[in-house]
Amino acid sequence: MAPSAITPPQGVQETSELTAAAVAGKIAQTAPGLLKRVADPLNSGVKTTLRPLDASRLRFTRTTTPMTVPQPGDPIIATASQCTDHMITAVWRSTTGWGDPELRPYGNLSLAPTASVLHYATECFEGMKMYRGFDRKLRLFRPDSNCKRMLVSSTRIALPGFDPKELEKLIIAMIAVDGPKWLPKAGTFLYLRPTMIGSAGALGVATPKEATLFVIATFMPPLGAPQGLKLLASTDGVRAWPGGFGFAKVGANYGPSLMANGEARARGYDQVLWLLNGQITEAGASNFFVMWKSKEGKTQLVTAPLGDKIILDGVTRRSILQLTRERLSHGRTGQDPVEIVERQFTMEDIVQAVNEGRILEAFAAGTAYFVCPVSVIHYKNQDLQIPMSQGDSGPYTALVKSWLVDIMYGREQHEWGVVVEEEQPF
Amino acid sequence: MAPSAITPPQGVQETSELTAAAVAGKIAQTAPGLLKRVADPLNSGVKTTLRPLDASRLRFTRTTTPMTVPQPGDPIIATASQCTDHMITAVWRSTTGWGDPELRPYGNLSLAPTASVLHYATECFEGMKMYRGFDRKLRLFRPDSNCKRMLVSSTRIALPGFDPKELEKLIIAMIAVDGPKWLPKAGTFLYLRPTMIGSAGALGVATPKEATLFVIATFMPPLGAPQGLKLLASTDGVRAWPGGFGFAKVGANYGPSLMANGEARARGYDQVLWLLNGQITEAGASNFFVMWKSKEGKTQLVTAPLGDKIILDGVTRRSILQLTRERLSHGRTGQDPVEIVERQFTMEDIVQAVNEGRILEAFAAGTAYFVCPVSVIHYKNQDLQIPMSQGDSGPYTALVKSWLVDIMYGREQHEWGVVVEEEQPF
Repeated sequence: MAPSAITPPQGVQETSELTAAAVAGKIAQTAPGLLKRVADPLNSGVKTTLRPLDASRLRFTRTTTPMTVPQPGDPIIATASQCTDHMITAVWRSTTGWGDPELRPYGNLSLAPTASVLHYATECFEGMKMYRGFDRKLRLFRPDSNCKRMLVSSTRIALPGFDPKELEKLIIAMIAVDGPKWLPKAGTFLYLRPTMIGSAGALGVATPKEATLFVIATFMPPLGAPQGLKLLASTDGVRAWPGGFGFAKVGANYGPSLMANGEARARGYDQVLWLLNGQITEAGASNFFVMWKSKEGKTQLVTAPLGDKIILDGVTRRSILQLTRERLSHGRTGQDPVEIVERQFTMEDIVQAVNEGRILEAFAAGTAYFVCPVSVIHYKNQDLQIPMSQGDSGPYTALVKSWLVDIMYGREQHEWGVVVEEEQPF
Repeated sequence: MAPSAITPPQGVQETSELTAAAVAGKIAQTAPGLLKRVADPLNSGVKTTLRPLDASRLRFTRTTTPMTVPQPGDPIIATASQCTDHMITAVWRSTTGWGDPELRPYGNLSLAPTASVLHYATECFEGMKMYRGFDRKLRLFRPDSNCKRMLVSSTRIALPGFDPKELEKLIIAMIAVDGPKWLPKAGTFLYLRPTMIGSAGALGVATPKEATLFVIATFMPPLGAPQGLKLLASTDGVRAWPGGFGFAKVGANYGPSLMANGEARARGYDQVLWLLNGQITEAGASNFFVMWKSKEGKTQLVTAPLGDKIILDGVTRRSILQLTRERLSHGRTGQDPVEIVERQFTMEDIVQAVNEGRILEAFAAGTAYFVCPVSVIHYKNQDLQIPMSQGDSGPYTALVKSWLVDIMYGREQHEWGVVVEEEQPF
C-alpha cells in the first residue's frame, strides 16, 4: 500500500469521518470538528459557543536559541529529558473552548500551586515515536490510533474533548519543524509525548475549568533487557480493576505502580507482571503476550481481552494481533497456523504450560519498550523459565518485531507508516 | 486538657518518638529525623549521605508585594484559588536528600514539561484547616495526624520520606506568619494544603529523582448542602480496590472520580456514594457514616473499616469515632448507649433499615466538607429518604459536629486543638 503523505496543516479541514464522540463514549466539553452550542457551565442556562481545537490556527514562534543535538552516548540521553527545540501548546477554557495552538520554543510551564493536575491527577498522555526510515523519510506509526486514544483518556479524566485529527495535525506540524535537525540518522527514532493537564488553579475537587495540551519530543535511552525481561508476578498489588480506569492512559495508572516496580527491581526483576484475581493483565506498562501449545496441541498467541476495560488498548498490541491474524493464522509461512486468542488467562495456566513443556515464547509489547521478549516469570517462589531460542528472542517474537520494524522504518510500504513532509533543516 | 502551644521552629530538634518508618511501612528514600547512609541510586555501590527534611533550616524570604485579603462575598473566595502571601517549599533530590526549606512569597511553580507529576501522577497532599478561635487564638486540629498520613501517601506514590514532625513545624512556621493578616476573624478558617510532587524532568516511568514539597493556604467557599447531601450510589464506577491505593491521599484517587461526580451532579445529586461489590466505602471524597437501630434494637454508628486499605483513614472520621466511643457508648448523656461499629456494610443493609424504619441519620465527614448530613441516597432507581429531624441535621450529627467545632475553635480546651503562636501582623 502507498504511504499517505501528510503535510503541515494549511487551512481549516473539517472532518466528520472520525466520529470521535463514538470513540470516547461521552464528551461533554467540545464536539469534534465543529462548533457546538453548549450550556455554559459557569452560567447555567446561558448558551455560549466553545471553540474546537483547530490546527489550522497554529501560530509559529521559532526558537532564537536553538539547542545542540546530543550525540550517541551523551549521558543526557539516558535521562529521557532532552527535548527538541520546540513544543506545541494549546489552552482550553470552560468558557471559551480551545485557544489558538502555538508552536513555540521548548521551555518550562508556569503553574499555579493550586493547579488541578498537581493535586488531582487530571492528566493524560500518549506515547508515540517518530522514525527516520531507511529511505530517509520521517514517519509516524498509526498516529490516528494514538490521537483517538488520547481523547478516550482525556474524557475519562474529566479533561476536555477535541477532534483527534486536529491533534494529529499539530503533532505532524511540530515534527515537520524539528525532525530534520533532531532525527537525521536512518533507523533511529525520537519519542513523542502529547500530554493534557488540568491547569486551572482551584483546589475544589471538580472538573478543571482550564486545561493545557502540550506535545514534546525527547530522546530515549535504549530500553529492554538483552537477556529477556524478568517479570515478577504481583501477588498483592493490583494495577487496575473493573469500574476503574486501567484502559485509559492517565497518570493515575502509573505513579501508583512505581512502588511495586521498585520492589521488583530490588529483587532482581525488571518489571511487575500485574494480576487481577490471578488473571494476567499487563507487564509493567506494556501489554503481555504468551505463545504456547494449547492442551489440544494448537499453536496459540494469547493476550488479555479489552472487554472489561482493565488493560490498555495498546497500538502495538492491536498491530501485533492484526498482523498475526493476517499472516500466521492460515499457516502461510509454512509453519503451523497460529490461533489468535484474546481471553482471560491466569498464572496457573502459565505454570501448567511451563510444566507440561507447552510454553513457546512470551513477550511484552508497547510503544516505549516495543516488543520485548520475556525470559523469566517469578510466581509463588518459583522462577518460571520461558524459552528464548533464537538469539535474544523466540522466533515468533523476532518475526512479529521485524514486521513492525519494516513498517516503521519504511522497508515495507504500509498504510500504518504515515510519512511526514518536513521543512528543511534550519 | 491544656492546649499545647507550639512556636515556630528554633534550632534542631531531633525527634525519634514518631517512628515514622513504622507508620509508612517502608521508606526507601530517607530516614526520619536522622542522617542515613544509603546506596546512591545513581552510582550503585557508592555510599552517600542524604539530608533529612529539617525545619530548623527554614529560610525566610518575605513578600515585598503583599496581597489584599478578600472580604466575605468576594467572588474570588468561591474559586478556592486565593492563597495567602507566603508558601513553604522544599526540594528533595535522590543524590543529596532534602534541601533547606524556604518560606517565600506565594507564586507559580516552574516545571519542565517532562516533570514526573504531569505524566505519572507522582503527587500526594493533605487537607487541613487553620482556625481562628473564639478566644482569638490560632489553632490547628490534630496536625500530627495529617503529617503522618502525608508520609503514608508519599511512600505509596514513590515520593520521598520525611519526619512528619518536621512538616508540622513548617506548616506552623507559615501560619505563624500569614495567620494574623489572613485569618483575623473569630470563628473562621482557612484551608491548608501541604502537597508533594515528583518534579524531576524525565519521561521514564520510574521513581522521581527530584521531588518538591510545598504548603499553601487558601480561602474556601462555604461547602455542604443546606438541605442535606443527596448521594447517588455508584453502581458501575469503582473508586478503589484491594491491592490499590484508596487509603492514600494521592491524586490518583481524585481525578478518576470526577467523571462519575459530574454525572451525579447532572442528575441532581451532590456526590457519589462509592460502592465496592455492593459495600459502601466513601461518599465523594469523604468518609460515610450511618446511624441506625440494629435489628436487635441497638443504636449503632456504623462506618466502613480501614483494614482492607480501601478507604481514607480520615482525621475527622477517626476523631468522630473516638469522641463517640468516649462520650456516647456508655449512654452518658442520658440517651441510649451508642455502639460504634467499623465493619463492612452494604446498600442492601441501608435499604432494609430504611424500609424497616430503623435508619436514624447519615452523614459524610472530612476536613473540607466537615460533617455534612445526608438527606437522600439514590440506589437502583429509588431515592431513599434519610431523616434530618433537627433543623438541617439529625441530633447525633449535630452533637458530633458541635464537639468538633468546640475543640477547633477553642471553646473546649483539648489536646487535639494545637495553638500556634503567631507573629505580629506585618
